[in-house]
Amino acid sequence: MKIFTFDTTLRDGTQGEAISFSVDDKLTIAQKLDELGIDYIEGGWPGSNPKDRDFFERARHLELKHARLTAFGATRFARNPVEEDRNVAALLEAGTPAVSIFGKSWDLHVTRALGIKLEENLKLIADTVKYLKDHGKEVIYDAEHFFDGYTADPAYALQTLAAAKEAGADVLCLCDTNGGTITRRIEEVVSEVRKHFDGIIGIHTHNDAGLAVANTLAAVEAGATHVQGCLNGYGERCGNANLASILANLELKLGHTTIGPEKLASLTSVCRFMAELANMPLPNDQPWVGKSAFAHKGGIHVSAVLKDSATYEHIVPEKVGNRQRVLVSDLSGRSNIMYKLKQHGLADRLDEDSRRALLERIKQMEYEGYELEAAEGTFELLVREALHPGIQFFDVDSYEVSTRAGGSDGSHTTATVTLRAADGVHSATASGHGPFNALHLCLRKCLSKLYPQITDVRLTDYKVRVLDSNKGTAAKVRVLIEWSDHRKSWSTVGVSDNVIEASWKALVDAIRLELMRLTDQDSSIERAVEDYCWGV
Amino acid sequence: MKIFTFDTTLRDGTQGEAISFSVDDKLTIAQKLDELGIDYIEGGWPGSNPKDRDFFERARHLELKHARLTAFGATRFARNPVEEDRNVAALLEAGTPAVSIFGKSWDLHVTRALGIKLEENLKLIADTVKYLKDHGKEVIYDAEHFFDGYTADPAYALQTLAAAKEAGADVLCLCDTNGGTITRRIEEVVSEVRKHFDGIIGIHTHNDAGLAVANTLAAVEAGATHVQGCLNGYGERCGNANLASILANLELKLGHTTIGPEKLASLTSVCRFMAELANMPLPNDQPWVGKSAFAHKGGIHVSAVLKDSATYEHIVPEKVGNRQRVLVSDLSGRSNIMYKLKQHGLADRLDEDSRRALLERIKQMEYEGYELEAAEGTFELLVREALHPGIQFFDVDSYEVSTRAGGSDGSHTTATVTLRAADGVHSATASGHGPFNALHLCLRKCLSKLYPQITDVRLTDYKVRVLDSNKGTAAKVRVLIEWSDHRKSWSTVGVSDNVIEASWKALVDAIRLELMRLTDQDSSIERAVEDYCWGV
Repeated sequence: MKIFTFDTTLRDGTQGEAISFSVDDKLTIAQKLDELGIDYIEGGWPGSNPKDRDFFERARHLELKHARLTAFGATRFARNPVEEDRNVAALLEAGTPAVSIFGKSWDLHVTRALGIKLEENLKLIADTVKYLKDHGKEVIYDAEHFFDGYTADPAYALQTLAAAKEAGADVLCLCDTNGGTITRRIEEVVSEVRKHFDGIIGIHTHNDAGLAVANTLAAVEAGATHVQGCLNGYGERCGNANLASILANLELKLGHTTIGPEKLASLTSVCRFMAELANMPLPNDQPWVGKSAFAHKGGIHVSAVLKDSATYEHIVPEKVGNRQRVLVSDLSGRSNIMYKLKQHGLADRLDEDSRRALLERIKQMEYEGYELEAAEGTFELLVREALHPGIQFFDVDSYEVSTRAGGSDGSHTTATVTLRAADGVHSATASGHGPFNALHLCLRKCLSKLYPQITDVRLTDYKVRVLDSNKGTAAKVRVLIEWSDHRKSWSTVGVSDNVIEASWKALVDAIRLELMRLTDQDSSIERAVEDYCWGV
Repeated sequence: MKIFTFDTTLRDGTQGEAISFSVDDKLTIAQKLDELGIDYIEGGWPGSNPKDRDFFERARHLELKHARLTAFGATRFARNPVEEDRNVAALLEAGTPAVSIFGKSWDLHVTRALGIKLEENLKLIADTVKYLKDHGKEVIYDAEHFFDGYTADPAYALQTLAAAKEAGADVLCLCDTNGGTITRRIEEVVSEVRKHFDGIIGIHTHNDAGLAVANTLAAVEAGATHVQGCLNGYGERCGNANLASILANLELKLGHTTIGPEKLASLTSVCRFMAELANMPLPNDQPWVGKSAFAHKGGIHVSAVLKDSATYEHIVPEKVGNRQRVLVSDLSGRSNIMYKLKQHGLADRLDEDSRRALLERIKQMEYEGYELEAAEGTFELLVREALHPGIQFFDVDSYEVSTRAGGSDGSHTTATVTLRAADGVHSATASGHGPFNALHLCLRKCLSKLYPQITDVRLTDYKVRVLDSNKGTAAKVRVLIEWSDHRKSWSTVGVSDNVIEASWKALVDAIRLELMRLTDQDSSIERAVEDYCWGV
């Protein structure tokens, strides 16, 4: 059966403690969710803050292929007629085809939080739904705290749904807002509601009891056909239901249709992309999409899996875009690299010596704290350098960067770089916003005559991680830099006890890589690297 | 009903990708699990590695008050008579009152992984259980892959259980080893097994589909009375069922008895302790015990919770030893901050003007990209500066830092800082591993005579995040630095388009905060901040 999917990362997800997206992030995520084939993307609460209003304004220019953008809001305030309610007006101004509005189902909330009579709440619901329907919107009615409300007073909870339904709501979405309802109870209550109402019933759960995904599946088994959640399970307190797990379970375990098998195969990469934008490392053990989700460590497991994957894998990992990993030892990583190079016909281009040298170099770098799986750019450069021994493009003679500030004035940074290229020695000095910016400008100045193409490369992210934190400010750091041109993106990495030196290494690698790519346009190299590192 | 609890962190938990415990760690954890009131502690697989053998040797000296220590192993090898099987002998040598042994329930595994006939497997099971019973052990029989096996061949799967039962097994534990079974199916199969066998049925689930906790509860509802899991859900691939969530749900949602309400109130602290020993940060959003599990961020949630906690909390957090937190961010009103200051009696120390000034400053900083929720140190400094207007300790006249490198040599960094303190102008120059280290040394040199205590502060983590990545190397960055003294840890934050300046701001805040703390030792300030940010 077709189950409609509704992602609320951009609204409920941002209520997660450490989650914060810029408007640009939100637009990028909306685009990505659309590509994944999500049916509804809840973009924010335009009545609650200027950032969300700004998002909807700019979202008018998004070209979504499939998803319906959805604005979120509350039923009108008790003191306002619906046409004078600013929150409801903001919903219309958002200009989305669909809106979701939440209303109260639980008598405790009506009397304690809103401080109004039970009948009045029914009128708020009906007025608001009707007004939005009259303005041509698809209306998803979110029955906040429905399960708690139903337990406290089943008849009243059903009346609130009836008020929304009779006013024309397209979806009645039952919310376990506090996340404390157990699975059996969800199934019972959804089954009861199903008896009373035709049409689409939705489910929106939270993970406070660790049951959000199971509760969503139970609701679907009891008749819900619209599921809400956040792709990586972000959200207030313990998060919303993890929509990625829900999609995979519905498609692969229960035989329903959500985004379809083809899009499902991009689930892992989309989840990782979201984690990057949220600046939250994706937990290795995240079901379906985590790096360890199909990783085998125990000796018995490993040997059985090598005979037959089904012995210790519940599905074929590629169905969700993930892959098997065998953690026998760090040796497995290196044989994996050769395996990938062979697969792409590159191993033959390396003789025995350069093959061994490449593996040795990788081993040494991993020992120093480089993480090559996360830095496809640096890895690609290693492979290319092994294929073209001797090509250097330039040698750095020296670099220097200095930052100074006086009192409360801003800071000033200046850098100087001297290097030798094919056309001689070049020196350049530049001021920049920071040391990295200044060094980048110097490098570009030195090389731009000989290689005008390098100016295309643009930094898109910059991350610093301390590797051995017990050494205080003298700790070793790893700098990971993400770059992109108009075609794709990649990362380079540098490790040093000096953050400037680590950044410099990653910067020089990025420039060298760009020049290498111009020299040898054999695309099988990039494919082999992407395949190995799971490029962006 | 009494449900028996079985923790396998020390055995199955160690198969998690990043999990590794020393023998000392394992002994400490066993003690802690005993204090928590767990019934069975699976300590390891003595037949599989010397570390586990060593653990059981040393565990003889543990004084457990309640728990039964359990050794894990496999049914005998097909080629060995049971009395000559070294793996089985190791189980006896472990000297534990209970043993758990796993056997095959799935025909695929019998024929593919073991490579023996189906009847022979039944004999391995029966022989091994009987031998261990004859030697006075309590025997928990783990039916590996039971649910997959039952689906493939129900009659054979039941025969394996019968072999164990007839040989005297005390518990028949049904394992969803690959973690891919959905909740409804778990309930169906356990109900079927319940019909065939008296006595204790156990359940052991994995989280590959994100359903492990729900699956365990479903098994209990179908008649299982013995639950296996790992306290923080560690384990191979996506982990074992999270035993902490299981305990809380069984006690607080389903009305069963596990460790009892008094021990349950220490659940959060035991889970954090385990995370420390595993060197894995406890996820903030971990159900029941995470730092964010009862944290409220959305403005509407906050104002409702302040009226009545039950509006957005499914239980009273203290029941599991957790607590409520109210967060500040652009999503919520500034009222949260004042609420915390009031709670700790600090609001009265601020007059109306300084109150407004504090809120304005916080608002401005958040607008610039500071994230105060994550930086309790910087937030505490703001509060302290509002309480003590005019105290500065020192003014920075200037700082300068420069890094230079020649060719392939390493880099050299030198910094100079000039500041004015109560005892005059100080200037210091220092070399460091990197710019941050060098600046830190200069600051300490300048201030150490006047304030010798500041040298106690130690950097423990350093994170850089790009805020507006589309500006390339000129982007704004946020630097978050974690500090600790011998007592506690806290973070400070700096934002700038220059990573050096951002680091400098966070560094100066940390030093100022340390001096502020020496000046005003009113501990209610730290408590208010901790309460707000939950410092470690």
